Amino acid sequence: MKITRESISEAHERIQPYIERTPVLTSASLNELAGCQLYFKCENFQKVGAFKARGATNAALKLSKEEIVKGLATHSSGNHAQAIARAGKMLGVKSYIVMPRTAPEIKKRGVRGYGGEIFECEPTLQAREETLAKVIAKTGAAEIHPFNNYDVVEGQATCAKELFEQAGGLDIVVAPVGGGGLLSGTALAAKFFSPTTVVIAGEPAGSDDAYRSMQSGKIEPAQSNTIADGLLTTLGDKTFPIIYENVKEVITVTDEEIIAAMRLIWERLKIIVETSCAVPFAAVLKEKEKFKGKRVGIILTGGNVDLEKVGKWFA
Amino acid sequence: MKITRESISEAHERIQPYIERTPVLTSASLNELAGCQLYFKCENFQKVGAFKARGATNAALKLSKEEIVKGLATHSSGNHAQAIARAGKMLGVKSYIVMPRTAPEIKKRGVRGYGGEIFECEPTLQAREETLAKVIAKTGAAEIHPFNNYDVVEGQATCAKELFEQAGGLDIVVAPVGGGGLLSGTALAAKFFSPTTVVIAGEPAGSDDAYRSMQSGKIEPAQSNTIADGLLTTLGDKTFPIIYENVKEVITVTDEEIIAAMRLIWERLKIIVETSCAVPFAAVLKEKEKFKGKRVGIILTGGNVDLEKVGKWFA
Repeated sequence: MKITRESISEAHERIQPYIERTPVLTSASLNELAGCQLYFKCENFQKVGAFKARGATNAALKLSKEEIVKGLATHSSGNHAQAIARAGKMLGVKSYIVMPRTAPEIKKRGVRGYGGEIFECEPTLQAREETLAKVIAKTGAAEIHPFNNYDVVEGQATCAKELFEQAGGLDIVVAPVGGGGLLSGTALAAKFFSPTTVVIAGEPAGSDDAYRSMQSGKIEPAQSNTIADGLLTTLGDKTFPIIYENVKEVITVTDEEIIAAMRLIWERLKIIVETSCAVPFAAVLKEKEKFKGKRVGIILTGGNVDLEKVGKWFA
Repeated sequence: MKITRESISEAHERIQPYIERTPVLTSASLNELAGCQLYFKCENFQKVGAFKARGATNAALKLSKEEIVKGLATHSSGNHAQAIARAGKMLGVKSYIVMPRTAPEIKKRGVRGYGGEIFECEPTLQAREETLAKVIAKTGAAEIHPFNNYDVVEGQATCAKELFEQAGGLDIVVAPVGGGGLLSGTALAAKFFSPTTVVIAGEPAGSDDAYRSMQSGKIEPAQSNTIADGLLTTLGDKTFPIIYENVKEVITVTDEEIIAAMRLIWERLKIIVETSCAVPFAAVLKEKEKFKGKRVGIILTGGNVDLEKVGKWFA
C-alpha cells in the first residue's frame, strides 16, 4: 500500500479539473436536534451525483494509454458504474458495466447516458464477479474495482481532505461503509491531514459485515437485508486492514433509523440524498452521547434516488 | 411608491444579518435539455426555506418599536407565515398567523416552531382577509401583508439583486407569480441593477389571473385549481402596476408540466423544491424558443414540501 499524504494531494490535483469541490452545509436546527455541530459534506452534488467520481477518475487517469485502449470495466450497484462510464467517455474509450438487475433505474440511465454498456446480473457479489470476469475475458477491458483498488481509495480520500480544508478542527468524521473504499480513504485522509480527528463508520444493521469484521479481526461475509442499496458489499482485502487500523468503531442502524435521518436531511437541508447516504447521520442520532458538543463532519455520499420509491419511504 | 435603487440596496444591508446569501446552481445536463444557460437562484436554502424571509424581515425591521409592541400579524399559505413568525421571534414580539386549513403541515410546524399562533380558515382570499381583520381587531398586532406591501416588495427585490451580482449579464430572469410580491420586486431589481435583463413570469394555468390581468390591463380574480399551493393568490393594487409596466410576459404551465420540471430539478440538481418553485423552469421548458442560447436566471422560491405527498407526484 503506497497511499501517502503526498499521493493523496497529487490525486486531488489530478482529478480537480474533472470533479466538483462540493459545498459543506450546516443547519442550526439539526445541530440542536443532534446536540453537536454538524458539517455535511455534500457529495450528492458531485459529478455523477456521488463521491464515486473521485476514485474512478483517479484510477482511470493513472492507467496508461495502452492499458485502457480496450476500454474500462467494473461491477457496481450504480454510482461507481456511472463514474466509470463517465471516465470512459472523458478518455474516449468504451466502458462495460456489470450491474445487479435490482440497481436503481436512475443509475442505469446515468450509465447509458455516458455511453456505458450494461450487463445485468443477480444481486450477489459472486454473480457480479463472475459476470465481470466473462466480460473482461471477452473485451480485454481494464478493470477498475469499485473499492478494492488503492487508486480508487486514494481518490475517495480527497473527499475528507476537502472537508478538513473547508471545516477545520473536526473532532469526528463519520462515513458510511459498504466495501470500504470511502471509509478507508477517509481514515487515511484523517491520518495524514487531520490526525486529531476520530473516524467512525455508519453501517446498516441489515448488512453489518464491517461491524462484525471489526469485532472478529477478519473479513466477515455480508448479508443484504437493507434499503441502503449502496452498502451491500463486503470489505475487501485492501480496504479492511486500513479500516481495522484507523477506524475507531462502526455504529449500526436500522432501516427505520435510516429513513428518519434521510427525512430530516431532505426536510431541513432541502437536498436529495440516497438511503445509503443517510446512514452516518442516523448513526450520530442513535448514539448522541458519543458526539455531544463535538464538531462532527458527515460525508453525504450521493443523491441518486428513484423518485418512484419515495412515496413508500415517507408514507 | 418609493422603491428606488438606493432603497433596495438599503433593504439588502438591513436584512443581511438575518438572511442567507443563497447559492446559484448550474447544471450542464439541464442546460442541454433547455437549450440555454440556466442559473438557479436557490431560495429553497433561504431561512424558513423560502425567499419570503427577505420581504418579511425587511418590513418588520422598518416598523417602529411602538408599531410592533402588540405583535405582528398576517395571512399566508405558509412561507410568509413562517417568515413573519421568525421575525416576531427575532424582535421579541408575538405573531398571529391566519393560514388556510389546507396549508402544508411542514409550513404549519414551522410557524409553531417560531412561536407563532395559527388561526385556520377556509382556503379563499376572502376568508383569509376576514379572519385576519378579526385577529387584528382583537390583538392590535401590526399587519404585514404577504405581498401587497412596498416594504415586502423591496425585501423580495434583494433576491434578484443578489442573483445579478452572482451571475452577471443575464438576458432573462424568470420568477413565479402568485400575489406578485416576488415578481414586482424582481422587476424593480432588474430595472435598477440590470436594465438589459428581461423579466418573464411563470404561472400555473389553473390559477392564471396574472396572465389574464396582463391581457386586460386590470386585476382579474384568481381561481385555485393547481398543485402549486403557493401561487393561488391574486395580484394586489400595489404589485400589479409594477408588474404591468416592467414584466414582459406571463407564461402559463399545467400541473403536469410543473411536476415534470420539479422532477428534473430534484433528480439533476439534487435539491428539494416546492411545486410552486418549479413553475418558472416549467415555463422555460414549455417555450424553449424564447430562451434559446440565452443566459437565463431562474428564481427557485422555496423548498417546504410535505414529503407524504411526494409519492403521489412521482408515482
